[in-house]
Amino acid sequence: MSNGKRQLALGAMMFFPAGEHISSWRHPGSEAEGLLDFNYYKRIAQTAERGRFDMFFYADELYVWDRFESGISHANSIRPEPFTLLSALAAVTSHIGLAATISTTYNDPYHIARKLATLDHFSGGRAAWNIVTSQTDEEARNFGKERHLQHELRYERAKEFVEATQGLWDSWEEDALLFDKESGYFADKNKLHNLDYEGTHFKVKGPLNITRPPQGYPVLIQAGASEAGKEVAAATAEIVFAPGGSFSEGKALYEDIKGRLAKYGRSPDEIKILPALMPIIGATVEEAAERLAIVENLTPDRLALDLLSHYIGVDVSGYPLHEPLPFLPEEEGFNQSKSGIQRIRRILKEEDLTLIQLAKRIVNKRAFAGTPEQIADHIEEWFNHGAADGFNIAFTHLPGALDDFVAEVVPILQHRGLLRLEYEGTTLRDHFGLSKPKNRYSQDKISLGTTQR
Amino acid sequence: MSNGKRQLALGAMMFFPAGEHISSWRHPGSEAEGLLDFNYYKRIAQTAERGRFDMFFYADELYVWDRFESGISHANSIRPEPFTLLSALAAVTSHIGLAATISTTYNDPYHIARKLATLDHFSGGRAAWNIVTSQTDEEARNFGKERHLQHELRYERAKEFVEATQGLWDSWEEDALLFDKESGYFADKNKLHNLDYEGTHFKVKGPLNITRPPQGYPVLIQAGASEAGKEVAAATAEIVFAPGGSFSEGKALYEDIKGRLAKYGRSPDEIKILPALMPIIGATVEEAAERLAIVENLTPDRLALDLLSHYIGVDVSGYPLHEPLPFLPEEEGFNQSKSGIQRIRRILKEEDLTLIQLAKRIVNKRAFAGTPEQIADHIEEWFNHGAADGFNIAFTHLPGALDDFVAEVVPILQHRGLLRLEYEGTTLRDHFGLSKPKNRYSQDKISLGTTQR
Repeated sequence: MSNGKRQLALGAMMFFPAGEHISSWRHPGSEAEGLLDFNYYKRIAQTAERGRFDMFFYADELYVWDRFESGISHANSIRPEPFTLLSALAAVTSHIGLAATISTTYNDPYHIARKLATLDHFSGGRAAWNIVTSQTDEEARNFGKERHLQHELRYERAKEFVEATQGLWDSWEEDALLFDKESGYFADKNKLHNLDYEGTHFKVKGPLNITRPPQGYPVLIQAGASEAGKEVAAATAEIVFAPGGSFSEGKALYEDIKGRLAKYGRSPDEIKILPALMPIIGATVEEAAERLAIVENLTPDRLALDLLSHYIGVDVSGYPLHEPLPFLPEEEGFNQSKSGIQRIRRILKEEDLTLIQLAKRIVNKRAFAGTPEQIADHIEEWFNHGAADGFNIAFTHLPGALDDFVAEVVPILQHRGLLRLEYEGTTLRDHFGLSKPKNRYSQDKISLGTTQR
Repeated sequence: MSNGKRQLALGAMMFFPAGEHISSWRHPGSEAEGLLDFNYYKRIAQTAERGRFDMFFYADELYVWDRFESGISHANSIRPEPFTLLSALAAVTSHIGLAATISTTYNDPYHIARKLATLDHFSGGRAAWNIVTSQTDEEARNFGKERHLQHELRYERAKEFVEATQGLWDSWEEDALLFDKESGYFADKNKLHNLDYEGTHFKVKGPLNITRPPQGYPVLIQAGASEAGKEVAAATAEIVFAPGGSFSEGKALYEDIKGRLAKYGRSPDEIKILPALMPIIGATVEEAAERLAIVENLTPDRLALDLLSHYIGVDVSGYPLHEPLPFLPEEEGFNQSKSGIQRIRRILKEEDLTLIQLAKRIVNKRAFAGTPEQIADHIEEWFNHGAADGFNIAFTHLPGALDDFVAEVVPILQHRGLLRLEYEGTTLRDHFGLSKPKNRYSQDKISLGTTQR
């Protein structure tokens, strides 16, 4: 951002460890056998850093998707824990941001504030937090509850969780540590603050037992595209991870979120909107189409149908495969992803798909097949025409599809001046051009001086 | 252990990030200014690995000790979070074990099972878990509670926590993952198991969304020296971290714990007892004594007294410094460390110390000053005469005291055949000579074959 030119923000997304796709592990180029080996992740993060991505973005869930047998048999159902993964990656990378998906529904602010602060210290200011509220009853049952927290309540809890966490990050003023061996003063007690947070969901005394993250707060990411999710994003998020879809859908969401910022006293450039995009690169249009076909055929019908049943909360297995679904799924009373079911309703209203076509369409919803130039054009179009500040790039398989993107698309984006040739700053906030939040307790010494005069 | 010879087990302990001591940061050789920089820890862990330690042992607490102002002003009150620290260390070391102190009182089994499993996978089987129950009301208040859980209840909770965690680790049988791209089978559904744990404190469905740790279970460490703690250790622990003290105290505890194993169907060598020891090395006895004096003078009187008040739950600040404490602290109703207060009572009964002497004595309780030969003799004596299976070595300051130990004491221990010259195995269980626990669900194929014949 040093020359004032608007820079494309790029995330390298690992939705499943084997790639974007629930069936990415099955791709001929997948190296999923390595997904319990740290070297697999190290290679991927280092490649993304070589491609000058802003961040490595790691999705997460807190359960095995075993609602249907196909989930166990066919889906990529194991995944390393985010903090243990990203912290190890911090030790073997130097510039790329490290974004952890962490649920506010099944965690405590003290632990999360501390882990993110440690990750931010150890990475030299490269931590980000993708704030999610989890989605399923299965997750609830791993944490002593029968049902997942109701949609509105979990957003209320998320809001409190973030408030408490930010408060904990401010515990120590920047110059609180003295390390004065002579006098024996380790810290200036006047610069350490209790939080004494009391909300409906959390009560947290503080202070945090680690100092403020180098970035002030790690970068806050939010992906909610529901009404409640968009409000949380507008109030809190700095990066919005958007679902992608058509250009008109993307532009509408972009304008919707940016339009909500004013009421929170925020300007449009304080939030960057990154839709998901799964590029499928071919040297020619034909080759790209062939590669798309490979990806579309990875998911067994059984798994695709069960996933659709999961996303709409209705078992579709009894309906004819090659006829349209004879009903519109009900949003009312559905307690998983609101924006997900809304999207499926929209597709059903607008398009004429058979059940199996719909199911496969949902699985591959982020795909865009084309030549490197076409993919760069697509990115540039969204970026220049009010639909995106960048993209969270998804990969059909890993590490191959990332290797290809870095080799073939990144140079075009760099040549067009959209993407950095070298990192200009050291923190993730530097990469994104986001300012460092002030500590609520710090005296602004310059203004204070002025006032006293 | 390959030649059957009993090997000395060695932990390199980081109690505070600056060293063993609450005032280690103030030691002239301390590099505590670096304690928010990952390179500080990297250097320490790599030095310990070079010294052929079995493990790097990281202590933890979930609060800032701010009960007394001196705690904020003088104590080393910040510390990185264990998982984020140890996982990053896994990426820059190759053999040394990595032991995380994790509280069962303020955590969920699902998260901890998953983080430890990830750490064990990424480190190639080097994870250990120091199971603690936390000690103070201050910690409770960072997690929405007013008071710390009562002593017996927290040990009951710890027992359930470990049971649930071990159950989650067994979720996937060793050969459950198929990665069969051709057929589309990722896993064998018959080799994935729900846990459905239901205790008084926890209800956990499972399965865990990561496969079994390479070590089966990470090595389990326990430090409780109270009655309840010793029972948990005998039932569950593989390494006992003992408080140290005099040889007779050490031998009594050693025999006590080993004597409890039979009733749990365990043999004495299934548990290794490692007392704490803070060596203070001098080229001569005089130099060692001078160095001990430096350490003893690091802690301001105010801080030492407040620490004593903390350990016994009674404010001693009104009593004369140079007279004995006029009462014996009451164990009854005291809800912090039971073994800690028992030890202080023992010292008060056996020795004739003034208040300030007692306070300083407690702070420096693990010190042993001598020449490298004397320190090696001390270690060997405990090891050969039924008081220890090894030591958890504490350091007056870091990284200097560790550097000295590796340069001066390790070669003697190696020369005497007590300590390995090179690591012989790759996992922490290999180093300790501990066997890998079987998965509760796995068919033992050989016995099965025999039975069927």
